[in-house]
Amino acid sequence: MESIKIFAPATIANVSCGFDVLGLALDTVGDEMIIRKTSTKGIKITKIIGQDLPLETHKNVAGVAGLALLSELQSNSGFEIEIYKNIKPGSGIGSSAASSAGAVWAMNKLLGNPFNTTQLVKFAMEGERLASGVAHADNVAPALFGGFTLVRSTDPLEIVKIHTPDQLYATVIHPQIEVKTSDAREILKSNVTLKDAITQWANVGGLISGLYTEDYELIGRSLHDTIVEPIRSILIPAFDAVKSNAIKSGALGCGISGSGPSIFALSKGLETAQKVAASMESVYENVGIDFDIHVSKINQQGIKIL
Amino acid sequence: MESIKIFAPATIANVSCGFDVLGLALDTVGDEMIIRKTSTKGIKITKIIGQDLPLETHKNVAGVAGLALLSELQSNSGFEIEIYKNIKPGSGIGSSAASSAGAVWAMNKLLGNPFNTTQLVKFAMEGERLASGVAHADNVAPALFGGFTLVRSTDPLEIVKIHTPDQLYATVIHPQIEVKTSDAREILKSNVTLKDAITQWANVGGLISGLYTEDYELIGRSLHDTIVEPIRSILIPAFDAVKSNAIKSGALGCGISGSGPSIFALSKGLETAQKVAASMESVYENVGIDFDIHVSKINQQGIKIL
Repeated sequence: MESIKIFAPATIANVSCGFDVLGLALDTVGDEMIIRKTSTKGIKITKIIGQDLPLETHKNVAGVAGLALLSELQSNSGFEIEIYKNIKPGSGIGSSAASSAGAVWAMNKLLGNPFNTTQLVKFAMEGERLASGVAHADNVAPALFGGFTLVRSTDPLEIVKIHTPDQLYATVIHPQIEVKTSDAREILKSNVTLKDAITQWANVGGLISGLYTEDYELIGRSLHDTIVEPIRSILIPAFDAVKSNAIKSGALGCGISGSGPSIFALSKGLETAQKVAASMESVYENVGIDFDIHVSKINQQGIKIL
Repeated sequence: MESIKIFAPATIANVSCGFDVLGLALDTVGDEMIIRKTSTKGIKITKIIGQDLPLETHKNVAGVAGLALLSELQSNSGFEIEIYKNIKPGSGIGSSAASSAGAVWAMNKLLGNPFNTTQLVKFAMEGERLASGVAHADNVAPALFGGFTLVRSTDPLEIVKIHTPDQLYATVIHPQIEVKTSDAREILKSNVTLKDAITQWANVGGLISGLYTEDYELIGRSLHDTIVEPIRSILIPAFDAVKSNAIKSGALGCGISGSGPSIFALSKGLETAQKVAASMESVYENVGIDFDIHVSKINQQGIKIL
């Protein structure tokens, strides 16, 4: 096997109560990439279709993540990468994570799997560091593991894959405005009240319990964020109206995807997720804001060979 | 059925990372109570053996919890309660919770189960309010539900029973010093760093995931408390030495039981839990502090009829 074509999924980080630790992978939204072994040492990004992103290896998240893998392996291997970008950078659904995770996953495959998935997360985090200044794992972990993931610890890195019920669907709406991850981080307060923190970890506990027991109502009751959403939602136009419509249309919960501006909702079943999509769309249609919208089952598998 | 004799278990609240929300029930440590239906309306505490506690209904936690139940039911029923107190008040293993929970559980049984378990938690919380000034649920919930419990929300009250692996054993050591719950609450800071809070909810997620998947190592890695333990442990003599001995002897994790002064450790299997007990004992033996020690399987059932 000298070349593979893969699907690298979009991801939702934080998932309301799980700021910085929880994430999930989408099934119908993601980038496609072709990764090819070559005789020239190093990584060459040969083509990027769909977005205007740097081809220079050191400036490209897939390149940087790939170099981290090669450096650890002390390998003389060489790879060419083509990226067919379907996830818009800055949308809040893990655009950089998909490219970073896709590159290292495919390279590992072509090299005969020298690394386990947690090690791949570590390499892909170097792409995240380039993209946002912080080597966070909450998007690359679900992209690589699939399903819901928990970053239990960053040092040492430990990712826990959480059981994900089969009827869980995500609706994601992306209003066409820009919120930089770095800006969205800066407005956060460095201290929180103990009371709010307790509420948050009670909900993390409830959400994870609901995922294991496939208790959709418990999942819904736990999808609250008392700490980050009240601050970051200010940066997202009509957030309250979109969320309120989603809940009224039957969504289990609704919140900010990653650092925004995308807003996600989780629903039980495709039909509800589609109704939720229509209700979220209507808000931006009424105020005249352009948007993309996606409805997707939770991706249980992560990156796939096409 | 006009009279029952019950076992009301001791409980460990907080369980390291789960401050204010997690708790678990013990199997071999607890109070015994006899509850009898009478023809006189109200509640009479007729006997308390083992501890010097008030017999006046309004000053006794079992009395107050029972009155809360009768008031909700608008009942003319009457009950007599005998309490055989094996759990020392102020030990940090839910002494007041056992009496409160036991009273309402037995009364509900004798009345033909008009209330569900969550409603019983609510009544028992009134006993906790009398004991500590705060109507917290983190001891009464596991006493009534058994196993591990999560207080997902206090308003409205929602208790989630968490799957508890069969080979999980607790070791609890109680140094004979007094730490008042109210004092232990006062020294807490009302604000925490977002960074510490994230670490805490990552560990709550890891612990709950480990319980469902019966991954004892993950349970152990998640039993950390970056927020409360560093402050409260100052009130407990030789805490660091006891904890370090427990971990060295094979405990999965070790922390403060409730608001202390008891220290708990969790282990896989009875044999390890007993080794852990010996190692914890040795610390207090060396410094000449009196202690009680308990080794117990996690109680899956909660209160039991004897």
